This record gives sequence, structure tokens and C-alpha cells, in this order.
Amino acid sequence: MDLEFLHKLIIPAQTKIVLLVMDGLGGLPLEPGGKTELETACTPHLDTLASQSALGLTIPVGPGITAGSGPGHLAIFGYDPIKYEIGRGALEALGVDFELGPDDLAARGNFCTVDDNGLLTDRRAGRLPTETSRELAVLLQTVRVDGVEFFIEPVKEHRFVFVLRAPGLDAALTETDPLKTGVMPLSVNAIRPEAEKAARLVNCFVAQAGRLLAGKSPANMILLRGFAKFPIVPQYAELFGLRAAAIAINGMYRGVARLVGMQVLDVAGDTLADEFAVLESHWHEFDFFYLHVKKTDTCGESGDFAGKVRVIEEVDGLLPRLLALQPDVVIVSGDHSSPAILKSHSWHPVPTLLYSKYVRSVGDTVKFGERACARGSLGVLPAKHILPIALANAGRIAKYGA
Amino acid sequence: MDLEFLHKLIIPAQTKIVLLVMDGLGGLPLEPGGKTELETACTPHLDTLASQSALGLTIPVGPGITAGSGPGHLAIFGYDPIKYEIGRGALEALGVDFELGPDDLAARGNFCTVDDNGLLTDRRAGRLPTETSRELAVLLQTVRVDGVEFFIEPVKEHRFVFVLRAPGLDAALTETDPLKTGVMPLSVNAIRPEAEKAARLVNCFVAQAGRLLAGKSPANMILLRGFAKFPIVPQYAELFGLRAAAIAINGMYRGVARLVGMQVLDVAGDTLADEFAVLESHWHEFDFFYLHVKKTDTCGESGDFAGKVRVIEEVDGLLPRLLALQPDVVIVSGDHSSPAILKSHSWHPVPTLLYSKYVRSVGDTVKFGERACARGSLGVLPAKHILPIALANAGRIAKYGA
Repeated sequence: MDLEFLHKLIIPAQTKIVLLVMDGLGGLPLEPGGKTELETACTPHLDTLASQSALGLTIPVGPGITAGSGPGHLAIFGYDPIKYEIGRGALEALGVDFELGPDDLAARGNFCTVDDNGLLTDRRAGRLPTETSRELAVLLQTVRVDGVEFFIEPVKEHRFVFVLRAPGLDAALTETDPLKTGVMPLSVNAIRPEAEKAARLVNCFVAQAGRLLAGKSPANMILLRGFAKFPIVPQYAELFGLRAAAIAINGMYRGVARLVGMQVLDVAGDTLADEFAVLESHWHEFDFFYLHVKKTDTCGESGDFAGKVRVIEEVDGLLPRLLALQPDVVIVSGDHSSPAILKSHSWHPVPTLLYSKYVRSVGDTVKFGERACARGSLGVLPAKHILPIALANAGRIAKYGA
Repeated sequence: MDLEFLHKLIIPAQTKIVLLVMDGLGGLPLEPGGKTELETACTPHLDTLASQSALGLTIPVGPGITAGSGPGHLAIFGYDPIKYEIGRGALEALGVDFELGPDDLAARGNFCTVDDNGLLTDRRAGRLPTETSRELAVLLQTVRVDGVEFFIEPVKEHRFVFVLRAPGLDAALTETDPLKTGVMPLSVNAIRPEAEKAARLVNCFVAQAGRLLAGKSPANMILLRGFAKFPIVPQYAELFGLRAAAIAINGMYRGVARLVGMQVLDVAGDTLADEFAVLESHWHEFDFFYLHVKKTDTCGESGDFAGKVRVIEEVDGLLPRLLALQPDVVIVSGDHSSPAILKSHSWHPVPTLLYSKYVRSVGDTVKFGERACARGSLGVLPAKHILPIALANAGRIAKYGA
């Protein structure tokens, strides 16, 4: 079933949907047969909601595929994450909250060190302090090439985001980073004819950057890789008829939400409670809310099982504030799994709960977790199927055929 | 897996398959956590069969999509209901048991009222009595246009089916119904060049119809919409090697069965027992039987939970007659869900049982219903996957590869 088919059946409604994404929610037990992070957490409110919900396990990209946060979010937002690929450069730009437009070509940049012959001696310029990097970015911003805008956004240490803005740029470019020392940085080549304009502009920029940075050793040159444009994705308002809002603190998640046409709301602080407060204060303005919890993933990636448990429990404690708003449909899920035992994202399907008045609920008492979800009435399903089911439960899809 | 792939693996066998479709079988509890219609029904025979069967939940069209009976049946017959779309006009023709052929273009018709200036004053001609409508249909049948046949089949009150029969007709036509009063009925326009012949013939018919009906106020004009041809669907005999029979009382179901090449058998009365009697009397003539139960859906759509329960129990009481025939494979399912609480079709997956000697059965005692099916060995699967599984259980699919 493609989005075009779904789009034709969309009908208006007054209902509200909340998508609560705990990043990297899915987990694994510390020892075989034990409990996962979610199963360990004491979550009375989630458990009660789960008993009134349909449960399932969602597959973000495909069987055995470990999803990055970009594809994982696109999937839970209802899109095919293989069709709509977000390239590395675009992701890096999202990460610093840069508002990429359709004319923008983004890349990941490094400050690096070259010797007098122009040969690379350090691909990371000694991981120079972020502060120095920031000053050099201001310097690079003075480069001028006719008919085009450049943006240099510092990320951390030697890393920055490079964005080239001009009509008609194509991202099919080779990279300048040779991935080893002792050789010169490469020129950018167009992989197809449409990219020749972009190649010429990037090479022109790199040449000027090299001249500006000469003498600034160790950061006396730059490397660029992962050239990418933002994928053009059908927008939530047009596609699903939803006025959608995103509540997220980190740049990348705000960026992916913006990509699909959600309005990204400001969050006053950096706590979960701050995010829930935004949900409450904007409740009457939107049909759909995406609320992102980052720290489940942070703990998973750093191997902090107990920390991940505590974050889940903190979310559980805030859940009553969400439910008090009386949403018609609530989805609680993750964009991928991040088991603490693996200290990384993983391929495991993600425990998912879908609440509405019209689901076939479990009925009995249930502990929200991987095992309960594996036996749920939603089955094991692609993550992109969750949004259509949510829309159906919200009375927003017409009958197909008579 | 497409039908062409499956077709190449089909091998002959002497086995018999019965597909028992309880229309709108899937349901919801009256209160959260309660029992659905099927779970409420006392169904000892279905339960015993279920314990010897593989269980699952079938998705007729796609996640979150509420299927009409046309697409729902195509799916359980083994076809992709999005690829083979049955348009409105074609469905209406099925409903009055009109045998649509490949040269036929069908539309939904209304008698309507226009004033002296030809402006619409009532799009339904005061919902004139079916009897009057029937007489006017006979009158319209006298229209003559060179090289083409017309059929006017009364439906109910002001509604009729209009069929245009000629080679080379295309259904890409605009409609004549402006969907409001105070304006003139519209001419039909071709949306693409191939439809110009059809547009010309329809406009010619409508002009003559208007002249014939002048003075027959309130039914002094007609409106046509939902132009559709019957989709060309691979036929059961050729595709699956099955001599297939349909046992259904209502026109639309008989029509969809005819569409896929089933032989539609006459049913002497209008009771379920009459349908089972047809199954018995034709048992030796066919490999595959589709038996349709209408009233589960009728009760679901009218909100009659208890009535739906009773119909399911009536089917259960007749099941021993079916089983006494010793079919090799039995499927019990629905074309979609129709929960009484929603008074309409719904998107919920449909409880499905597949019996043969070769399934991984539940083994234990089981109550046939949505919850048991959610935990079944078939999982949650597209409805179109059921037929291949049935064919396999019937020894009708060869090995793929060595």
C-alpha cells in the first residue's frame, strides 16, 4: 500500500493523535531469559494504557536492519525509509538545527592538517577545540563565489556542516576525504552530468578555503564528504490532512519532523516535563503531536541499563499529563531499539502500543514490554504501518470500495 | 509474491477446498476489554475445528484501510484488491446480478427532476416508487443509438444501473451529476482521448432519455455517475487450476465470484440452510466452493450485536453438514470486519481459521475469536495470502527450486 493510495482515502476529522517516541526504546535483557529495560521498568501508567491498547512489535526499516534515527523516525511517521533516504550531510545539518531547503546541498566537513606539499598529515586537525573551530567557521564564511550562498555551521571539535545553496545542485558527487594520510585531499567529481555545477562550486569553495586557512595549522585545510540534498517528502498537512506539531529538543529530531511538514515547537527547557508542558499549552492548535524522548537512546548507547530504566520510569510518571488531555489515539513506540547490552542501535523490532476506543485491547492486566508486544494483536509489522492504523482509529480514513 | 509466480507452480490434485465467508465477521467488544461478537457466540463446532486449525488475523486491503465488500472479497479470493479495483458503477451492476462483460461500461443512474429551463430541482425525483422507476426503465430501454446496446436495470426508488455495451469503451469519463440543484446536469467529457467514443455515446443516450422523459415529472431527467468497467481479473480455472463454485444469495457477491471465474450456483431459498444444501448437492462437481453468509454484516452494520452473535451461532449449527463432506481444506473468515459498535465496516483484521490435516494446529481447546486468532500460527497477514496457503494444504502447489 503506497502513500498515494492512502492519501486518496483521507477524510477530515476533529480527532487528536499523540505519537510518543522513546528513542531507542527496544532493548534486550542483561542475561538470556531476563527482562529488558522496558520490562524491568516500573511503569504502572503505561501498563494500564497497554491493557486498553493494541500491542505489536514494529520493524523500522526491514528484517535484520539496524535503523539510524533518521530512517527510524521517517518510518514511524508513516514513510518508507528506504524510498526517502536522508543522506549523511543532510542528517548532520539537521543535527545542528540548520533549516535545509530544496536548493541546499549539505556535506559533513572536517578541519584537517596538510604539510607543505599539501599532503594530509591529520584528517582531524588534532581534534581542535570546538571554540577554535567556531572561529575558523566565521573565517570560512567570508568566502565568496558568484551566484551561490555558503553556510558553515560548527558541530563539535574538528567537525562542521557545510551547506551550498543554489538552484539546480545535484548531490551525485565524489568526496574530498581520501580516508588516509600521506596523500592530497581529492577534488570533487560529478558522478553524473547533472552534478557538474555542484562539483565546480564545491571545488571553487575548497580552493578558497585552503588559501584562507593557510598558516592556521593544525587546521589549515578542510575535507568534505557525504554530500546530500534533503529528500522531498510529501507533507503531513497535504498527505494526511493533519496539522502536526513536533516537540523535541535535539536538532536532528526537530529536523526530521520539519522535513515531513510538522511545525516544530519551542521547548523552554531541556527536561521531559518541559516537553509535556509544550504539549499541554499547544493542545488546541494541532491534530497530531510528535513528542520525542531522547535519553532512552543515550542510555542505551552508553550501555547504561539502569539509566534507561529510569528514563522510561520518568516518562511513565508524566504519562497522566498526556492522558488528561484525552487524546483520541495514543502511540507509544520507539524509532529503533538501543539495547544497553549492545551499546548501540540494533535491528530488534520495537515494542509499540496503540490506544484508542476502537482497538481490540488485551483486556487483561499486562506489563508493557517486548514479550507482551510479541503476542499483541498488531503482530510484528513494518513501523510505517502504524500511522495508517492510527489514522483509521482517529476516523480519518474513508472506506475503500463499496 | 505475485499471481504469475504462483500460477507457474500450480499442479493438479483431487482435493477440495471450502471457503466459508461470514461477511463482516470481525468485531469489537461492546466495552473495552470485553468480548467481540464472535467471542460471545456459542460456537462448539467452530471451536473444535479451530483447535485442529491454523489461526490468524487477515488484513483485507492494507493497514488501517476499511474494505468494501468488493475489495474484501477479491483479497480473500487471492487477488490484490488495490491492483484490481472494482468501480462504483460496476459494483452497482453486480448488485442487481447484471452479468457485466468485457465490452460493458456501467454507471450508477438516478431519475431526477428539472424545471422548464432544464435546471435541477431534485436530484432524486422525490425518491419515486420503485414501481414507477421500473416502468420508466422500460421506456428508456427504447432508446436507440447506432452500434451500441444499452441496459437500464432498476435498483430501488430513483436508482438504476446504466450499462453501455460496445467494443472499445473507456471509463475515464466525467459525471453528469453536478451534486447540487439549481444548475443543469452536466455533459460527459472524456478525461483521456480513449474515452471519447464512450463520452459521445453516453451524451447521445442522455439527450434522447431527456426527450423521452419530458412530461414525466418528477422523473423527467436522469443523472449518471461512477462510470466503470469490470476489471479484467485472471480466472480461477486458468490461474489456480480450480473448478470453483460460488454459493451466495445477494447479487454483489455472486457478481464478484463471477468476476474471478467461479460458477455461480442457484440457491433455492434465502436461508443459510438453503446455501448448505447447494454445497451438498454440488459437492462432486467442483474443487473449490465459496459460501457466503450475508447476515453477519447486516447485523454489524445495523449495530445489532446480539443479532450478529445469533447469525454466527446459526452458521456454527450448520458447520457439521460442511464437515461431513470431508473437505481437505476449510477456511472460515470474513471479507472485512463490521463491529456492531461501529455500525459500519471497519479496518480491523479479520479472524481466520484454516483447517487441513497438515496445519500446525492449536492443539488445545480454543475459542474461535479475535484474541485466539491474534496468537495464531498464521500471524497477522494480508488476506490475499490465505488462498496460496489453502492451495498448498490442498497439495496444489509444486516445490519452487530444487
